[in-house]
Amino acid sequence: MKTLRVELGERSYPIYIGSDLLGRSELVASYVAGDQVMVVSNETVAPLYLDRALHAFRDFQTDSLVLPDGEEHKNLEVLNSIFDALLERRHGRQTTLVALGGGVVGDITGFAAASYQRGVAFIQIPTTLLAQVDSSVGGKTGVNHRLGKNMIGAFHQPRCVLADTATLNTLDDRQLRAGLAEVIKYGLIRDAEFFAWLEAYVDRLLGRESDSLAYAIERSCENKAEVVAADEREAGQRALLNLGHTFGHAIETGLGYGQWLHGEAVAAGMALAAELSSRQGWIEEADADRVNKLLERSGLPVAIPASLKPQRMLELMAVDKKVIKGQLRLVLLKAIGEAVVTEAFEPALLHSVLTDRCRTEPLSRAGNQ
Amino acid sequence: MKTLRVELGERSYPIYIGSDLLGRSELVASYVAGDQVMVVSNETVAPLYLDRALHAFRDFQTDSLVLPDGEEHKNLEVLNSIFDALLERRHGRQTTLVALGGGVVGDITGFAAASYQRGVAFIQIPTTLLAQVDSSVGGKTGVNHRLGKNMIGAFHQPRCVLADTATLNTLDDRQLRAGLAEVIKYGLIRDAEFFAWLEAYVDRLLGRESDSLAYAIERSCENKAEVVAADEREAGQRALLNLGHTFGHAIETGLGYGQWLHGEAVAAGMALAAELSSRQGWIEEADADRVNKLLERSGLPVAIPASLKPQRMLELMAVDKKVIKGQLRLVLLKAIGEAVVTEAFEPALLHSVLTDRCRTEPLSRAGNQ
Repeated sequence: MKTLRVELGERSYPIYIGSDLLGRSELVASYVAGDQVMVVSNETVAPLYLDRALHAFRDFQTDSLVLPDGEEHKNLEVLNSIFDALLERRHGRQTTLVALGGGVVGDITGFAAASYQRGVAFIQIPTTLLAQVDSSVGGKTGVNHRLGKNMIGAFHQPRCVLADTATLNTLDDRQLRAGLAEVIKYGLIRDAEFFAWLEAYVDRLLGRESDSLAYAIERSCENKAEVVAADEREAGQRALLNLGHTFGHAIETGLGYGQWLHGEAVAAGMALAAELSSRQGWIEEADADRVNKLLERSGLPVAIPASLKPQRMLELMAVDKKVIKGQLRLVLLKAIGEAVVTEAFEPALLHSVLTDRCRTEPLSRAGNQ
Repeated sequence: MKTLRVELGERSYPIYIGSDLLGRSELVASYVAGDQVMVVSNETVAPLYLDRALHAFRDFQTDSLVLPDGEEHKNLEVLNSIFDALLERRHGRQTTLVALGGGVVGDITGFAAASYQRGVAFIQIPTTLLAQVDSSVGGKTGVNHRLGKNMIGAFHQPRCVLADTATLNTLDDRQLRAGLAEVIKYGLIRDAEFFAWLEAYVDRLLGRESDSLAYAIERSCENKAEVVAADEREAGQRALLNLGHTFGHAIETGLGYGQWLHGEAVAAGMALAAELSSRQGWIEEADADRVNKLLERSGLPVAIPASLKPQRMLELMAVDKKVIKGQLRLVLLKAIGEAVVTEAFEPALLHSVLTDRCRTEPLSRAGNQ
C-alpha cells in the first residue's frame, strides 16, 4: 500500500492506494467524526462492494443509501434524497458521509456532506479509475444544472481517500478508458515524463496490468495533490486541471448528461485543445499528433459529436466557470507537459477547430462498472 | 449612520445601520466582486424597494429575480430558480448576489451565493427587523427540508450588510413583533442591561419610535458580531444564539413552514426555555415571569400550538443540529443575561413544560411587509 498526503494545513488528509483495502477498518475508522456513518453508493457498485465497505465501519451506527447510476442523476433531486435518508435516520451534525463509487457518487455525496447541517465529515472510497486518479482528491463537490455542468457545489475536502485498486477488476472497459483520459491529462499539463511513460505503457494499462495501473494512479494522485496543495480554491494554477473540460462540459451538457462519459468528453476536449494550440503555433503539429495518437490508442474520442454545431458549442462554453467578464478562457498547451489558462487565442481558429473536429459515428451507451 | 464590524480576519465586513441608505452606491459598490450583480428579492419587498436597490448598483450589469414570499418557499426548488436566473443571464464566477428582503430571502440567496460555481460574492440588504438584527449577520445560510428547518446550507459570510432602518416603516406589525423576539434574545443570553432597557422601551419600539429602533438594532448587531467573531462556525458559544430555536424550529416544521413566523416560534421557544430553566431551579420564577411578560407585551406567543402534542414536539426536536450522539441539548438560562447549552435537564420536566405550555387560539396568517 502507498500513502500520499494532500497538504492543506488543518485540512490535510491521506490518500491510501493499494489492493484489497476496502474492508480494512483500521484505515478509515479514525476518520469517522462521531458514531454515525452513512455510506452512499449506486446500484452498480453497491452489489459488488457495499457489504465490504460497511464492514470497515462495523464499530459505528451504519446506514446506507443506493443511488441510481449515471451522470444524469447528479442533480438537486437526487441530492435531496441523501438529505431525506440522513434526516429519516436521524443523522446529526457529527455524522460521517462515505462516498463509495465513481465520480458521480463522490461529487454528489461530497456536496451533501458540505451542506448537510452546514457541513459534516466525509470520506471518499472511489471505485472507478477516473475517481481514483482525479475526482476523489481535492475537495471539488457538486451537482449539475440543466444549463451547465458542476455549476452548483462547494469546496469540501474529504478526511481521507481510500483507493482500492482491486475494485478496478470489475470496471467495464469503457469506464477504464474514460479514466485514462484524466491520467493522460496530468502528463499533458505538467508531467512530460509521465506522458512519455503513458505512451510506452498504455497497452499494459488497457490490459489491466496491476503494477502499471497502480503506478499510473499513484503518479496521477501525486500530481493532483501537489496542485491542490498549492491552490485549493482555484485562484490560479488549479485551473490547469481543467484541460479539455470547457469543451468536455459543453459536450456533456449539449448531448444530455450520461450520453458520453465525463472522461470521454474530456478526451475529445483535450484533443481539441491540442489542435487549437497547434494552429496557434504554440506547439508543434507533431506534438498535437502525439496527443491524438495516445488518446486514440486508449480508445477515446478525439472529436466532438457532429450533432453539436460550432455555434451551439460556443453557447454552451460561455457558461464555463473560467469565464471572466464575458471572456472565454481556455486551458491550452505550450508544450507537452506545460499548460496555460489563456484568453489570448484567435476566435477564428477556435471556430475552425470546432468546425473541423467533428465525429460522425455515435459512441455506444455506457455501462458503468 | 453607524458602522459596526464583524471581525473575521480576511472575511471581516461592515454592517451599516441608518436611515435611507438603500440607494447609496458609495456604501455597496466597492463590495461588488466583478461587473455583474444579481439582486434577489421577493414579491412583497420588490415593489417597494427594488428600484432603489438597483440604483445603488447602476455602474454594473444588474439583473434581478423576485421570489415568492414566505418561509414555505425557502427550499431547494426555489433555490434552483436562482441558479436558473444566474445561468440564463450568463453570470460568471465573479458575479455578486444581493439579498434584498427578510430572513428567507437572505438565507436562500446566501446559500445560492455559497454554492453557485462553488462560491460567489454576496451582499445583504435586510428589510425586516428580524433580518437586520439577526439573520443578515454571521454567514449562516440555507434552506429548509420537509423534515427539519435550515437542515441544508453553508457558512458563507456576506461582504457587507446594509441595514436601512427606513425600510421598517413599511413592515407590518406582525413582522415587527417577530423581529423583536430576536432582539429580546440578545438580552436574555448575554446582555441583562439590554433586557432591562427593552422592558422600559418596548412600547416605544412597538410604536416605531425611530431612535429606539435604531438603538435596538445597533445593540443587537453588536452582540451578534461579538459572538460570531468569537465562534464563526458554532463550535461553542455561537450555539447560545439558538435560545428558543430548538422548540421554535419544531413548531415551524410541525405546523408547516410559513404558518407561524420564525420570530413567533422563537418567542414561544424562549418562553418554554425560561419555564424549563425555572422548573429546574436554575432561575427564579420571577425571572421566568419577566421573560413571559416582555414577550407578551411585545405581542408574541409564549406557548406552543395545541395541535403539537409533547410526543410530536420531541420527535421534531430530535433532528436539531445541536443533538450529539442522539442526546438532545437545549439552550437554557442560568440568569437573565446568561445562557448555557446543556443536556443536563430533567426529561420529565421538559415533558411537563411541553404539556402545560399549550396555546389554544390560532395566530392570524402572516403578511410579510
